[in-house]
Amino acid sequence: MKISIERAALLKAVGQAQSVVERRNTIPILANVLIEAEGNTVSFRATDLDIEVVDKVPAMVERAGATTVSAVTLHEIVRKLPDGALVVLSEDGAAGRLTVEAGRSVFNLATLPKEDFPVMASAEYASNFAVPAPVLRRLFDKSKFAISTEETRYYLNGVYMHIADGDGGKMLRCVATDGHRLARIDAALPDGALEMPGVIVPRKTVGELRKLLDDDDMTIAVSVSETKIRFATPNLNLTSKVIDGTFPDYTRVIPMGNTRKLEVDASEFAKAVDRVATVSSERSRAVKLVLDEDKLTLSVNAPDSGAAVEELAVAYGDEHLEIGFNAKYLLEIASQVDRENAVFLFNSAGDPTLMREGNDTSAVYVVMPMRV
Amino acid sequence: MKISIERAALLKAVGQAQSVVERRNTIPILANVLIEAEGNTVSFRATDLDIEVVDKVPAMVERAGATTVSAVTLHEIVRKLPDGALVVLSEDGAAGRLTVEAGRSVFNLATLPKEDFPVMASAEYASNFAVPAPVLRRLFDKSKFAISTEETRYYLNGVYMHIADGDGGKMLRCVATDGHRLARIDAALPDGALEMPGVIVPRKTVGELRKLLDDDDMTIAVSVSETKIRFATPNLNLTSKVIDGTFPDYTRVIPMGNTRKLEVDASEFAKAVDRVATVSSERSRAVKLVLDEDKLTLSVNAPDSGAAVEELAVAYGDEHLEIGFNAKYLLEIASQVDRENAVFLFNSAGDPTLMREGNDTSAVYVVMPMRV
Repeated sequence: MKISIERAALLKAVGQAQSVVERRNTIPILANVLIEAEGNTVSFRATDLDIEVVDKVPAMVERAGATTVSAVTLHEIVRKLPDGALVVLSEDGAAGRLTVEAGRSVFNLATLPKEDFPVMASAEYASNFAVPAPVLRRLFDKSKFAISTEETRYYLNGVYMHIADGDGGKMLRCVATDGHRLARIDAALPDGALEMPGVIVPRKTVGELRKLLDDDDMTIAVSVSETKIRFATPNLNLTSKVIDGTFPDYTRVIPMGNTRKLEVDASEFAKAVDRVATVSSERSRAVKLVLDEDKLTLSVNAPDSGAAVEELAVAYGDEHLEIGFNAKYLLEIASQVDRENAVFLFNSAGDPTLMREGNDTSAVYVVMPMRV
Repeated sequence: MKISIERAALLKAVGQAQSVVERRNTIPILANVLIEAEGNTVSFRATDLDIEVVDKVPAMVERAGATTVSAVTLHEIVRKLPDGALVVLSEDGAAGRLTVEAGRSVFNLATLPKEDFPVMASAEYASNFAVPAPVLRRLFDKSKFAISTEETRYYLNGVYMHIADGDGGKMLRCVATDGHRLARIDAALPDGALEMPGVIVPRKTVGELRKLLDDDDMTIAVSVSETKIRFATPNLNLTSKVIDGTFPDYTRVIPMGNTRKLEVDASEFAKAVDRVATVSSERSRAVKLVLDEDKLTLSVNAPDSGAAVEELAVAYGDEHLEIGFNAKYLLEIASQVDRENAVFLFNSAGDPTLMREGNDTSAVYVVMPMRV
């Protein structure tokens, strides 16, 4: 194998590869990226056995071939090469070494046989559809904060993407929850998605996917089977196993009868919560909300360190209400609101509270109260 | 006590205080800042028993008095207050609470009696002199990287500031070393500094001092005794115990007879060292330098991961030399060079190597080679 490739393109591909690779590997080849050169394209493939990413980059292929080297080391090297450098990757086969040359720098990296690299089995996808990058970004960005980190509840360690009945009929929906808070984000149903099986997309996959979604003009081809999901752009393929479990029936958690409506500037609200939470003890960051006509009083009482209270002018017309929340959960939910006011719908101090942006029901959040 | 103070001024003073305070304290009052209001000034005092910082801030003092509160909590609160806010601090005495008010936010913080706060005993200073901030900055910035982190060699855990014979006669000199590398930085002797006792300024003090030195127009009043050093600006007093130990005779470490001279662009050199070091194993980051006429070859050979080699065009006229160094030490030393080329003076592969910026002998560095 011998190829010449522009540093920036190489850096992007190897960057994606090394981010999928797990830092601590008991299987040496999983630390490597599989480099395959053919025609005028080089593909860079990396996997952790659950996720596989393949990045295709145009390059001058002088001699076709394939090999594997440490993704992290190759990424470090390319990162440190000067901007604009032309990088030559070559392998003599017998030596078991990949040579990386750029300018007056020459690197010799240990390789492992390409035959040992575990290429993910291809799947039959039940459903194929296209989603604009900004739509996919919104679905996952607004839901991922609620993903559970409890490994025992593995079926909550991802975002549940499925087809559901929303306010506009059938919708493409992402839901995540950890039992304390929940996010439910809807998007218009893409052509061909109706028969999609519901799948739980693992946290790490959500993170890797995010890197494909920065370009607003990009459309992502999504393919879904019962066991796998694939996100593809013309140059990049991200395939992931989905979590083998049943996502709980979240619809019962979403309160439909909450009528006490509070409307508040989301940014002002978040800042005030952050301020009063300063005095709370690390463990239980409980903030108390006291609602009176057009007035919200936030307070924290921590016997050891002190107390804090702050008033906010809000829109509220219902009766007096006192309710407590974990400050972190309130902050995370409030920070999902982009433009409009946050609208909270309460029932009682013991019931789940619903939040949405203005009157937009395509993104709703539920947060459980805590005793204060 | 009752005072009104502008948020930005309060943030700066409390920020300095909380940075001196140790995060883990067995003595509760050491977590606190002592706030003393009198006349039209409020002073903020914090200590870890080795360092004391006192920041004086103009404020509207409605009622004089003093109290102590958690430096970290107060800093967090003030940091989160809106820019431009006027902050009112008041204490009723009996309640044992400090009230912090700004806009519609009210905080109540637990206090500890001001009488319990350990104010550092004032000292008789043998020597008092003034140093422009940029001069002090250079002395410490260019030497601190070489401070030892080995606690058993406590006398190397700081920068040795003393008067010494330099190229311009008596100089104010800072030296730091960890046994593997050494930095020796000279500055013109300030008026009144000649009789200064040599003192070892602890690492943490060097860090705190650095924050006073950003303003190029500032002059720092330095006072030195056998046991303490004080750095003062009109508003701020930083007093520190010095390390009670004897700094070793560093002069014997600095090679005077090295004649093999290499001149190299410091930035290009650093980048090349960084690149070839990529393939080295974490532990021994050994880089080999091979010198031939006007050519420097850097190389690393790591049996596990691979090899790297890079050539640099340099100025070198002596005979062939091969010598190895720790890549980290080379990088740190090269990054001290601001403008000019780095000049290395070698003797043999087993002898300490000297580095300086161009022909400037007011900042010299020594680095021990390692076997490669």
